[in-house]
Amino acid sequence: MRKIYLDNAATTQPLAICSDIYTEYAQELWQNPSALYADATRVQTKVEEAKKTLLRAFGSSVHRCVFTSCGSESANMVILRGARQKKNMNYVCGGAEHPCVEESFKYLAEQGYPVTFIKPDRHGVITPAQVAEAVDADTALVSVMHVNNETGAKNDIEKIAAAVKAKNAQAMFHADGVQAYCKERLTNTSNIDYYTVSAHKLHAHKGTGAVFYKENTPLKPYILGGGQEGGLRSGTQNTLGIFSFAAAVSYFMEEADKEQAGRVRDIFLEACSGIEDIVLLTPEDSEQACRHIVNLSVLGVRGETLLHTLEQQGICISTGSACSSKKGKSRIAKALGLSEEEAEGAIRISFSPFTTQEEVLTAAAQIKKEAELLRRFTRK
Amino acid sequence: MRKIYLDNAATTQPLAICSDIYTEYAQELWQNPSALYADATRVQTKVEEAKKTLLRAFGSSVHRCVFTSCGSESANMVILRGARQKKNMNYVCGGAEHPCVEESFKYLAEQGYPVTFIKPDRHGVITPAQVAEAVDADTALVSVMHVNNETGAKNDIEKIAAAVKAKNAQAMFHADGVQAYCKERLTNTSNIDYYTVSAHKLHAHKGTGAVFYKENTPLKPYILGGGQEGGLRSGTQNTLGIFSFAAAVSYFMEEADKEQAGRVRDIFLEACSGIEDIVLLTPEDSEQACRHIVNLSVLGVRGETLLHTLEQQGICISTGSACSSKKGKSRIAKALGLSEEEAEGAIRISFSPFTTQEEVLTAAAQIKKEAELLRRFTRK
Repeated sequence: MRKIYLDNAATTQPLAICSDIYTEYAQELWQNPSALYADATRVQTKVEEAKKTLLRAFGSSVHRCVFTSCGSESANMVILRGARQKKNMNYVCGGAEHPCVEESFKYLAEQGYPVTFIKPDRHGVITPAQVAEAVDADTALVSVMHVNNETGAKNDIEKIAAAVKAKNAQAMFHADGVQAYCKERLTNTSNIDYYTVSAHKLHAHKGTGAVFYKENTPLKPYILGGGQEGGLRSGTQNTLGIFSFAAAVSYFMEEADKEQAGRVRDIFLEACSGIEDIVLLTPEDSEQACRHIVNLSVLGVRGETLLHTLEQQGICISTGSACSSKKGKSRIAKALGLSEEEAEGAIRISFSPFTTQEEVLTAAAQIKKEAELLRRFTRK
Repeated sequence: MRKIYLDNAATTQPLAICSDIYTEYAQELWQNPSALYADATRVQTKVEEAKKTLLRAFGSSVHRCVFTSCGSESANMVILRGARQKKNMNYVCGGAEHPCVEESFKYLAEQGYPVTFIKPDRHGVITPAQVAEAVDADTALVSVMHVNNETGAKNDIEKIAAAVKAKNAQAMFHADGVQAYCKERLTNTSNIDYYTVSAHKLHAHKGTGAVFYKENTPLKPYILGGGQEGGLRSGTQNTLGIFSFAAAVSYFMEEADKEQAGRVRDIFLEACSGIEDIVLLTPEDSEQACRHIVNLSVLGVRGETLLHTLEQQGICISTGSACSSKKGKSRIAKALGLSEEEAEGAIRISFSPFTTQEEVLTAAAQIKKEAELLRRFTRK
């Protein structure tokens, strides 16, 4: 059976080019970049080149890059080590953030720091005005995600960052860019103090993330030890992961058809419009929605049941973020204020540049068919 | 020019079998293990199997395994989240530990916890009696490395752990096993609460480590977020790294010639015995020395100069641990109480099961030749 993979927000299949990178790594570039001989400094040079590639794609010449092991570690590092932590300081965080951000702020709250969680609208969007209102003279750090991993909501982080700085020029701004990097364009990164990214959402390997940070911005190491990554992240670098990350970023910048995800999203949504009783959880305003994630609720059907019936047809989707899928009812559904029925029926479909029209039409037709079948049982 | 790689304590070349694992990962097993469909649970199952393989090689049926991104993260997690941190508690740490251990304890010291660093002998060895003397009723955690990454000293961690427990049954014991795992045998792991390991020292990829911990032993997550790894380590797992780690461990358990490193070490040391004015920093007592690391000081020659002259002949060695090689004079040389001349001339040569007799004879002959040449300049 041919598989139709529509869970690209959870992870992506490595690009074919990563296979060549693997071979080069395993045969030629496996040395420890901290060693002193030329074979090792060659590896270190390639790590430095990878940083430049990543920062170019971010669109900044004033940020720096430190490699980590994943998006979660990146966010932990920024939130727990990225801003002055003084007794009187407070924090501001989006109310529908990825758990790696939310849990980090909850950790700070447990340490006694005041944290304001900003309530998003029912699609996951947060406005610059809401954020500005929460910031005061004692705010150390504000964190709002660029693209919401569950709903696909796209926050205007440039305006949000500017609003933060207008209220308090000393407050630091972080955006979790894991779902947005190389997919959504930024025109002005100057107010974004920290931006965190992950390789495996971009068709590179699992096991590599990065923090982009502005020079002179507070940032201390979270993993302590030998002082790799300019003293900011100890542990021998995952050089295979770093090289693959850079190759995938280059692919996205130079070769990938970046319009394809939006194209198949529109085709998919159009095809779904014939399904009765579905509620779009993704923002309808295209300015507020990313192109590669759709979240919709099939009322009267349990998302997980639908997921498993689609799986029988070779179609892979998600009920929410895979990062919290095993934890029962989506934390985010609560934050968005969805009804029980909306939350229960929510499914996430996510696209890549390789997703085809045929695939999304098949998926939409199957969702329609299975929804009708399943409703016969649940709505008796 | 044929390369002679004698820096296996810094990192190792991936096994050929890792290439097959790469292909399987990139084509079949790249899904997010937290997702709900069968393709993903297949990945999760393979992660669980990898844990079993690692624990079998450790020789324990009562420990559990959590995957991390590296040995450094593993040690950070154990030291900073692995024992009760109450105001009155204290810590005990070896005096020649890897920086990921030492810096973690220094961090605790900065937070106000008393930390005792135990002075090793001049080869890096620490005795059970020394450790027992430092432990009292308020000791939370003791950490002593299994094999010293710079000198190759092997600590009797079974006896040390037993001595800790005899003094205070509530005190936790951690051993950094990065240089020892699958290379040095343990017969009784029952007093070892935590043991931390790294994949890339075992011919697997960089980017994966693990913590072995006893059930019911205190351990909290260090990376916060989606709750992967049974809630203990958030972030999408580096599944490629995990699968390669397990394959390399299986290779070491079942196929590798584990005597080879010791064999070439003896041949190398014998060949070096003809070099004038060298001091063996590695313990001479074979009970106290691992088989794959030799550290010796070529008096009157700068280790770094020797390293670069050997490099011209295609021979890769280290001046100390690559993890601290860019930081100037070895922190460890100070801890061991070496003279300035001994510290300056120290080089580390480290072997793998693939190192040949011919390679180490060539290296020893070159060290002899270059030492004589270089001394003509330095000793004029």
